[in-house]
Amino acid sequence: MDVEARQFAIGNPPSAALLRERLASGALDAITLVETYIAQIEAREPEVGAWAWFDPEFVRTQARNLDAYRRAGRPLGRLHGLPVGLKDVIDTARIPTGNGCALDAGRVPLADAFIVEQLKKEGAIIMGKTVTTELAFMHPGKTANPHDLAHTPGGSSQGSAAAVAAAMVPLAIGTQTGGSIIRPASFCGITGYKPTFGAIPRRGLLTQSPTLDTVGVFASDPAGAALLAEVLFGYDAEDPATCPEPAPALFDAAQSKPPLPPLFGFLRPPGWDDADPQLRDAFDELVKALGDQAFELPLPALFDTAAEHRKLINFVEMSYHYYPYWRDGKDQLGKETREAIEQGNATLARDYLSARDTPKLLNAALDVMLARCDAILCPAATGPAPRGLETTGDPIFNGLWTLCGTPCLSLPLLTSQEGLPMGVQLVGARHNDAKLMRTAQWLFNWADGASP
Amino acid sequence: MDVEARQFAIGNPPSAALLRERLASGALDAITLVETYIAQIEAREPEVGAWAWFDPEFVRTQARNLDAYRRAGRPLGRLHGLPVGLKDVIDTARIPTGNGCALDAGRVPLADAFIVEQLKKEGAIIMGKTVTTELAFMHPGKTANPHDLAHTPGGSSQGSAAAVAAAMVPLAIGTQTGGSIIRPASFCGITGYKPTFGAIPRRGLLTQSPTLDTVGVFASDPAGAALLAEVLFGYDAEDPATCPEPAPALFDAAQSKPPLPPLFGFLRPPGWDDADPQLRDAFDELVKALGDQAFELPLPALFDTAAEHRKLINFVEMSYHYYPYWRDGKDQLGKETREAIEQGNATLARDYLSARDTPKLLNAALDVMLARCDAILCPAATGPAPRGLETTGDPIFNGLWTLCGTPCLSLPLLTSQEGLPMGVQLVGARHNDAKLMRTAQWLFNWADGASP
Repeated sequence: MDVEARQFAIGNPPSAALLRERLASGALDAITLVETYIAQIEAREPEVGAWAWFDPEFVRTQARNLDAYRRAGRPLGRLHGLPVGLKDVIDTARIPTGNGCALDAGRVPLADAFIVEQLKKEGAIIMGKTVTTELAFMHPGKTANPHDLAHTPGGSSQGSAAAVAAAMVPLAIGTQTGGSIIRPASFCGITGYKPTFGAIPRRGLLTQSPTLDTVGVFASDPAGAALLAEVLFGYDAEDPATCPEPAPALFDAAQSKPPLPPLFGFLRPPGWDDADPQLRDAFDELVKALGDQAFELPLPALFDTAAEHRKLINFVEMSYHYYPYWRDGKDQLGKETREAIEQGNATLARDYLSARDTPKLLNAALDVMLARCDAILCPAATGPAPRGLETTGDPIFNGLWTLCGTPCLSLPLLTSQEGLPMGVQLVGARHNDAKLMRTAQWLFNWADGASP
Repeated sequence: MDVEARQFAIGNPPSAALLRERLASGALDAITLVETYIAQIEAREPEVGAWAWFDPEFVRTQARNLDAYRRAGRPLGRLHGLPVGLKDVIDTARIPTGNGCALDAGRVPLADAFIVEQLKKEGAIIMGKTVTTELAFMHPGKTANPHDLAHTPGGSSQGSAAAVAAAMVPLAIGTQTGGSIIRPASFCGITGYKPTFGAIPRRGLLTQSPTLDTVGVFASDPAGAALLAEVLFGYDAEDPATCPEPAPALFDAAQSKPPLPPLFGFLRPPGWDDADPQLRDAFDELVKALGDQAFELPLPALFDTAAEHRKLINFVEMSYHYYPYWRDGKDQLGKETREAIEQGNATLARDYLSARDTPKLLNAALDVMLARCDAILCPAATGPAPRGLETTGDPIFNGLWTLCGTPCLSLPLLTSQEGLPMGVQLVGARHNDAKLMRTAQWLFNWADGASP
């Protein structure tokens, strides 16, 4: 095992971008790399519980094939040899995909999801399936927070976030319908990225709420998230939210320097007053440190009810799309899931259509706000990960951006008194993910002291 | 008034294509042409009642401007000098647009609808606003059938269909949410064309049901419908049903010869057994006359409930979009409108989502059926226009195709014993309007004996 490959398992993980470079040049073999991750999984999995399905031999086979492929001098994919964890709501052909639900135990899809096809084309290694809350909703799975096992890693993409945070895998994929990428990224102290709604096709994923469901990624830094997300962007005729348009060069954007120092419009979203004082103080300190580069953006009152509208849409679409679960085994569903479906069942169509129309109004306001700054800066969660594994924490700071379909990232820039990570959320304009990525990497470097 | 211009007012109207040619060459002045139509309107409007707003001076001013424009040798639009009637749910800047509703009396929009912008760019003459049923639903307006004033012209685009049938205007625009283009075209004995859902942007039109609302046209023959529709096709960011894709060359298609004699798959849709025996006999005769060029297509049982699903979607979306009418003046609404809104109000969101999913299944079947023939052939309405102006007739043969978003035309090929026209409906594959248009013009010519 080479020294560098070992290093990340015990300290600062190297960025996915650096790993890719070394894998492509042949300085690092895929098999060497995956052995390190396998060892790390074997060491930490019993306590963290990040994986729903993991088979080291399956991983090794892929790595050996990819190494042979490279040695034969054949052209390499953009993710050649990079291991990726997949939330267990993403269909993988001939590999169990259980959706975190007892009713789907033993389910084995026949076809890969669109994004799995993309990963395979680009030479990524499927590391395994990561734990999801039940049906990607609120009822927790088995995963613990790698920073403190007594705390939740957040949800619903809990296994993906914890696996990256525990250095079991450099990259992972999740989904967000409420706050399921940004919140676990915040609690686990890693970078989480939810692209513009519709950027990544959802064919072959569990459908919870087609109006809201968004695919996103986890990495140790924005550039890593950009590297992975870039190959997932695309068009698929089966996903009406996608559009045939060129994918942005996210990774180039993350590595490019902003023409001017970025300007951040910070805001204290609905729920701020009830947030953990530690979070509020740390966020205020960050804003202060940014000096002239941050100014306060007032959020119109219109946004106060956004969380309710999002919830109504989510529950209604869930009640329709999860109807087979509810019909065949509602007693086997968690209380949170059951209650949400029942609320959805009782909702009138007219109220649903009314809620569906709110993003139009909210985005009209956001377009103006985002024209005045490079990104909106706000907290990613209401505090550090709460103690206990019974809940996955409060998504109040996330639903708004899911409803609006704006791209956002959580960056691990703040720390609680107990040493738990707290994320800062950056929000950009829809369909301008590249600019958001460039701004995020700038802030990440700035906070690291690398680019003051 | 030149002889040719006069001729159509008393007998067979010349096709819009021929008028366009003569207008463009200068053989016919726009002012000469509109004087003929104005005279015809003045003669027949008192009994037919096709117009909600008509001002001969407004028409003459446009015609004189267009004639001056042509004489100056400037480039001409594709509809240069052609008068077009607009259903009164289409916003026209500074011209009253009353939506056929007492609550909108005196309403004057500030901006033109997308399609009115297109008409003006292409040099069309806005002839006036045609009568619509109340809010483009079932409660009839004042229009009578030009073929027999004791009979309904159909609805909801009743003024547009009657105006073309009475030779008051060569072309007109309507909308269809259930059967509002095809049925009045059938009853009035003209060509009606409902393009693929989403082909013509709806910005600036009354929204009844965004999932179903479709803009379409009326003319005396398919080529005329193609001429007008072609300039209306387009993309508008404000209408999510539209898509940035090149518009098909409909007029060229209508004038081109099919490479092989077209093959028709005829079917007897749900409701056939209750249809007027005259209609059934005439349709069967047409099929027989087509000989080897027609074969029977069985319609899967799935389609039996399509009408119910369409109605549920229509009523729910109506209850949301017409909420301001219902709230401010439900007592001033017709019984049909009020009852539909109340049904929509009481519908559950889950049932709405379920209905919204049916077109996917239906279209999977239609795709297979339409791969086996050039067009589906079926009746456009259950019989000739019913006697009386209290109802607008039965849309049972139309809703299915609106729900599926397939393009269709009604052609005036059949006649009842009393001499009332009955339409034949041709249905094509979505996004292949050009082929449908070519097939329709072939059938139109064939029935005319022009191309046996």
